[in-house]
Amino acid sequence: MPPRPKLSKTDHATIGKIDDLAGTVVSQIERGQDPFVNVPIRTLANSRWNQSRAIIEMGSAKAKRNFFNVGIAKKFMQTLLVASECKELIADDEPIAIRMLYYRTKHTIEGTRENTFEEQEESDPIIEDLEVTIDALREELKLFAEQRGGMVGPMIIEDSGDTINLAALGSGGWAVPSIVEEDVIKWKKKDCQAKFILLVEKGTVWSLLNRQKFWDHHQCMLVHGNGMPPRGVRRLLYRMHHELGLPVYVFVDNDPWGYYIYSVVRQGSINLAYESTRMAVPAARYLGLSSFDRERFKLPDNVTIKLDQTDETRSKQILAYPWFQKKKAFQKEIQHMLKSGVKLELEALMHHDVTFMAKKYLPDKLKEGGLW
Amino acid sequence: MPPRPKLSKTDHATIGKIDDLAGTVVSQIERGQDPFVNVPIRTLANSRWNQSRAIIEMGSAKAKRNFFNVGIAKKFMQTLLVASECKELIADDEPIAIRMLYYRTKHTIEGTRENTFEEQEESDPIIEDLEVTIDALREELKLFAEQRGGMVGPMIIEDSGDTINLAALGSGGWAVPSIVEEDVIKWKKKDCQAKFILLVEKGTVWSLLNRQKFWDHHQCMLVHGNGMPPRGVRRLLYRMHHELGLPVYVFVDNDPWGYYIYSVVRQGSINLAYESTRMAVPAARYLGLSSFDRERFKLPDNVTIKLDQTDETRSKQILAYPWFQKKKAFQKEIQHMLKSGVKLELEALMHHDVTFMAKKYLPDKLKEGGLW
Repeated sequence: MPPRPKLSKTDHATIGKIDDLAGTVVSQIERGQDPFVNVPIRTLANSRWNQSRAIIEMGSAKAKRNFFNVGIAKKFMQTLLVASECKELIADDEPIAIRMLYYRTKHTIEGTRENTFEEQEESDPIIEDLEVTIDALREELKLFAEQRGGMVGPMIIEDSGDTINLAALGSGGWAVPSIVEEDVIKWKKKDCQAKFILLVEKGTVWSLLNRQKFWDHHQCMLVHGNGMPPRGVRRLLYRMHHELGLPVYVFVDNDPWGYYIYSVVRQGSINLAYESTRMAVPAARYLGLSSFDRERFKLPDNVTIKLDQTDETRSKQILAYPWFQKKKAFQKEIQHMLKSGVKLELEALMHHDVTFMAKKYLPDKLKEGGLW
Repeated sequence: MPPRPKLSKTDHATIGKIDDLAGTVVSQIERGQDPFVNVPIRTLANSRWNQSRAIIEMGSAKAKRNFFNVGIAKKFMQTLLVASECKELIADDEPIAIRMLYYRTKHTIEGTRENTFEEQEESDPIIEDLEVTIDALREELKLFAEQRGGMVGPMIIEDSGDTINLAALGSGGWAVPSIVEEDVIKWKKKDCQAKFILLVEKGTVWSLLNRQKFWDHHQCMLVHGNGMPPRGVRRLLYRMHHELGLPVYVFVDNDPWGYYIYSVVRQGSINLAYESTRMAVPAARYLGLSSFDRERFKLPDNVTIKLDQTDETRSKQILAYPWFQKKKAFQKEIQHMLKSGVKLELEALMHHDVTFMAKKYLPDKLKEGGLW
């Protein structure tokens, strides 16, 4: 047997939460009761906008998942099965991917032809159920997803024991892992010379700005999530914002998807409301592109793209988000996009010059401190 | 005016090729001829299997693209427009993304309502035309795409002037940039302790093996391309294989897509046959998964996935590839998969244990030196 790994305080706490869950079920059985688990409901109806904290929160509604119920006995079993597997992963300090968890927990139930899971689409929601039931992030359960996104900038971090100078990683940069919790990614405040974080929507724009050493000229952390930033990137933004006091600026396409990325970074997503408290950055500022940039920076019609029906519908949905209701500037912004009938990609700035973005657009916008 | 950047030998050569192209057109005009460019044809019909070199090559057929032809005058103009823009990018040493090139070269032709390009789908093929016409890789034209994939291992590299120890990059690792040409990524033979390269299909499996320090225990470079490896990753494999003499092992799902990834790494792709000479690694070995692994490693039925009609059709196409025709073991492999009616994902190995892949499967397979 290999020696047991040294566990972190969080690891012990998470194991404790899983043990509590299991202990409750065991004592129900010992008392001759129908064993059950109370799982908080992850729906739009059970999420609410907490205005004072400025994040989307999960409500208090729960669903009883019990064993003696033909319709939900399987889910009850699956919940405990996933919990049990996660406990082992934490105890052995062996993180695995969520698809691997699916394979780990999938087996044919003895004496039947029934499998514990048929598809990963079944096991993923159970992971989320477990997260909300015991209040532990997926990352704390030692589960990761595909890593996506990158970071460079004037800062030294420690990743799994390796000291990494994020200012000396060339054109490739450091790939942001899926799990960036405190026991994996560490830093000292004195090792960070960055004054802010610039989150860029697109990997190619990040590559351009990295190549042009934007992060060096402006002393910032340059981050991208290849589109909608995955949990790892969002959690990293959250930690750097809170632990290092770095303002977060979001730089996205001027289209409904760009607005939505901004919304998720700021307030969290509706279907994963429970993660907002540890991922959302309500103070994040929108840097651009703005639909007013077309006039301001003299971008010709041929670098704009016509809005289609989906764009218009999505824009109106975003306009109606409670957290954007009182943001007059944001309302004006979207109204203006709808009126103009066109959207703008980050790449449209290339119209002027390949260095226009880094030398004119971003410095101007940063001086103004972001739009809202 | 900023000082002109110092250009590499390749940069000068590529500018020379563009100048030659332009010079030919100019002298055609001066001679009063209909100016034209001869563009090699990038089709399946004009690609051929070079058995002695073991790569897919482009044939010698060319298409005349001339100005006084209503049907192709636009393409003629586009080709020269892209060439001209690339010359500037090289001269200024300012690489941009292919979508940025589209925005840079898109404009409304004076006195008309006609745009030079309507969509990126129009400019991308023109880039490829230019590559084959002047025999310069896209990367040499200073054009990049989204970066995808990562690498860690016992090796020190230089990326854009930064020295990076790939054995000390934690769980995230070094993101492989889109351009990995000699003037960007450099190394010294003595700084590489790796004995081979393991290319893993999936990013999550790469993360697992990185986390478990597989590259350290087996002294190898651990690389992934998040699915089909992009050009940057393939070019990197090629360079490391040829310049450092490292064998390449491919570790993919046991399905038609996995076989196809292997085929592209080894022989190049059919629609981009011209890049094979500088990207294909004919000596790459297939490590797994094999359809025989199911019996050999006692994987139960519930971790297999039924082949569907598309899987069967694709498998038969791959079986018929000329470069696989004489590979008896490979033919047997695919026949066996078709007979068994199921495919296997890398994650299926998790059935046994979370360390089974790193501690049993891969060491066994490496000892055998790969399947074919």
